[in-house]
Amino acid sequence: MNETMKKIMSLAKRRGFVFPSSEIYGGVEALWDFGPLGAQMKQNIKREWFSRFVQKMDNVVALDSTILMHPNVWKASGHVENFTDPLIECKSCNSRFRADHMVDGRFVGQGEAKEPNQCPECGDRDFTPAKHFNLMFKTFLGPVEDDSHITYLRPETAQGMFVDFKLVQESMRLKLPFGIAQAGKSFRNEITTGNFFFRSREFEIAEIEFFCKPGEDEKWFDFWLNAWEQFYIDLGLKKENLRRYEHPKESLAHYSKRTVDIEYKFPFGWGELAGIANRTDFDLKQHAKASGRDLSYRDEETGKKYLPYVIEPTMGIERAMLALLIDAYEEVKGARTTTTEAAKESEVVLKLSKKVAPVQVAVFPLVKNKPEVVAKAKEVYNMLKAHFACQYDEVGAIGRRYRRQDEIGTPFCVTVDFDSLEHNDVTLRDRDTMGQKRISIKELVETVRIDFNA
Amino acid sequence: MNETMKKIMSLAKRRGFVFPSSEIYGGVEALWDFGPLGAQMKQNIKREWFSRFVQKMDNVVALDSTILMHPNVWKASGHVENFTDPLIECKSCNSRFRADHMVDGRFVGQGEAKEPNQCPECGDRDFTPAKHFNLMFKTFLGPVEDDSHITYLRPETAQGMFVDFKLVQESMRLKLPFGIAQAGKSFRNEITTGNFFFRSREFEIAEIEFFCKPGEDEKWFDFWLNAWEQFYIDLGLKKENLRRYEHPKESLAHYSKRTVDIEYKFPFGWGELAGIANRTDFDLKQHAKASGRDLSYRDEETGKKYLPYVIEPTMGIERAMLALLIDAYEEVKGARTTTTEAAKESEVVLKLSKKVAPVQVAVFPLVKNKPEVVAKAKEVYNMLKAHFACQYDEVGAIGRRYRRQDEIGTPFCVTVDFDSLEHNDVTLRDRDTMGQKRISIKELVETVRIDFNA
Repeated sequence: MNETMKKIMSLAKRRGFVFPSSEIYGGVEALWDFGPLGAQMKQNIKREWFSRFVQKMDNVVALDSTILMHPNVWKASGHVENFTDPLIECKSCNSRFRADHMVDGRFVGQGEAKEPNQCPECGDRDFTPAKHFNLMFKTFLGPVEDDSHITYLRPETAQGMFVDFKLVQESMRLKLPFGIAQAGKSFRNEITTGNFFFRSREFEIAEIEFFCKPGEDEKWFDFWLNAWEQFYIDLGLKKENLRRYEHPKESLAHYSKRTVDIEYKFPFGWGELAGIANRTDFDLKQHAKASGRDLSYRDEETGKKYLPYVIEPTMGIERAMLALLIDAYEEVKGARTTTTEAAKESEVVLKLSKKVAPVQVAVFPLVKNKPEVVAKAKEVYNMLKAHFACQYDEVGAIGRRYRRQDEIGTPFCVTVDFDSLEHNDVTLRDRDTMGQKRISIKELVETVRIDFNA
Repeated sequence: MNETMKKIMSLAKRRGFVFPSSEIYGGVEALWDFGPLGAQMKQNIKREWFSRFVQKMDNVVALDSTILMHPNVWKASGHVENFTDPLIECKSCNSRFRADHMVDGRFVGQGEAKEPNQCPECGDRDFTPAKHFNLMFKTFLGPVEDDSHITYLRPETAQGMFVDFKLVQESMRLKLPFGIAQAGKSFRNEITTGNFFFRSREFEIAEIEFFCKPGEDEKWFDFWLNAWEQFYIDLGLKKENLRRYEHPKESLAHYSKRTVDIEYKFPFGWGELAGIANRTDFDLKQHAKASGRDLSYRDEETGKKYLPYVIEPTMGIERAMLALLIDAYEEVKGARTTTTEAAKESEVVLKLSKKVAPVQVAVFPLVKNKPEVVAKAKEVYNMLKAHFACQYDEVGAIGRRYRRQDEIGTPFCVTVDFDSLEHNDVTLRDRDTMGQKRISIKELVETVRIDFNA
């Protein structure tokens, strides 16, 4: 694995961002737990997403549909038939491998398949022809485990929005164009995994199905592509590390008229962060046919009924987080802090944007053996944590504590010292400029808040 | 089904709170989707929970662990062996039923089992003896579907906190007592379901594993029981509709030293909202044994190592929502509004607390055919939705629009009229008092904000 990835993986585990799932049992490939800082960071990304694309927009509403759905949903959507990977099996040891391969973090189609010469497990060279393996996790509804009770863990949240289209439209009295937004867990039984949590078997997607008039679909495609890309830039990703990838017509998914991915320059190559797809009326048409329900929309002005077209912007929450961690990671040689001890080593600063940083403000008493200073620091901490995600730290020299916060990307550190007792003020230290200023405790919440909203 | 439940179910579907999952395919028993208002309300409950029990507490951190875990987790925890329901099978038609039964919304143990006299499916009276059926949904990791690849969808989030106990404690440098908090999807392959979404196969739990010194466990049990109960009261549930149920020693779960449920008086009887369990060191001991890992905590002051005890407060998010909807539901005969049309029928008001109401402010232009009034209303709407969950409505008489908002529990309605154009002010109407006052647009955000924070 790439050096940068190794460092980030180590930092992520050591500081409570990401752990291997079930680590005490040796872990499970491609399953990752998000520790206290990772959980908070994921939550921040989802909050920003929801605030921008649901709360502040006029015509997008939320949905929270189930992971387990009626099995016919996946038949109608084409997933039972098409959501597969080609697998080959070693004839000697029966190990299975993907028959296709990965270029720049994207799986290319079977046409370009390059089979391994020999089995990585046993060294044999004799494989079965590629068979299609469905990537949906299978389970059984109810106590009987037969074919009629099979259902699947959703591999995307989108189908919930299609299936509930009419219920949402009618209950909310929505007029086209409008969007249904959902963020939630999805599952794919991936065979080839790796690159830390880039490709996981369990992950969160945030997506919008934006329903519009046929003919207006291309305009909305452009709108969502721009809006989606801008979101990453506003979360703090450097523009030069982003690019668009237009899927060639011949390799489009079965439902898509056009797909553009937003990719990030990961240390292991360009990789998909998000995709915008023009799903046309494919899904609604399929579900109308399979369910026998009329899913058409009636235009009140013209009286005409038709199936809307759908533009789908979708993004992976964990992938956004991985890109943000990588993009924010900086090593600084020499002293950012003033202690001689610190000056010897290179220091790590996570320059996370204030919107996503898991800890927003850290509070330190200058010393931990003066009860008045500690009491004042706790008072300031209690005041701040009513408004922000805070951490209290009294262990070690101040310089060391700054470095600990820099490493997890905390934008502000507040130090309570002896002067604080007299003047009711604190030192506010900025992560990026390392500038320090005295602020009256009374103005602290407002000062920090203004900076966060900027 | 009870009349009140029927009314709430109908309101919930009609107004976009809750839909049957996969409804166009006939639905799936015990799976429910949360529409735009339900999704927002669930999110509000989770936000309040997180803010109170994680952000504002000193010693509780978040975790976001996977739904799919290593299968050994469920062996060690006792779930593979013990997380079962007794099922009997009709010898004639092979339908399966639970052999135990439900009292006041709580399943009582097999000892008290009362078997049905005749099969509800075919009428036959001959059943097999009860067999234990595991309630965990089963799936397979990887492409091979054999016993060695079985894992389960978690039936609770707790095991993630136990398995990651050391990783969290060390990465966050936590000292006892401290808690790990998690809210997330859990799954139970329930056989007996019903009462709308009271007992679902897929639901969200919010729980804390609070690790403390053995000997301090009973004190912390009381602390969490009180804190948990207070949360429901602060969300708006009437105190008289809540009670505590102390599990008798003989029917405690295999891991518990003491369990107290917090119950709500549902229209169908008292039902569990939440539980506080003293899990002692059962889980850490089991996982230490099964994994071979040292999961003990080292007390820095005394140097002693020991397994902490665990107090577990846990609650169902959807159940909280169901109780809140029921508790808030009021029918008022006669006119709350002034229109004669409205006065004829009884009106529904959802008296949801401001913290959980899915729409916080609705904005109306008095008329929709005056462009200046509409433009001003849109301006006010845009200003408000940067801060609150808002809805814009211009359809129908004002009285009708008030009633529409009352029915979904919107605390505030803002009307923009002709005077607004001249004086830059609006009418602010309070759901509960129906009081109306003129507020300058400049002060509107602050006025509403103060009220929400009150």
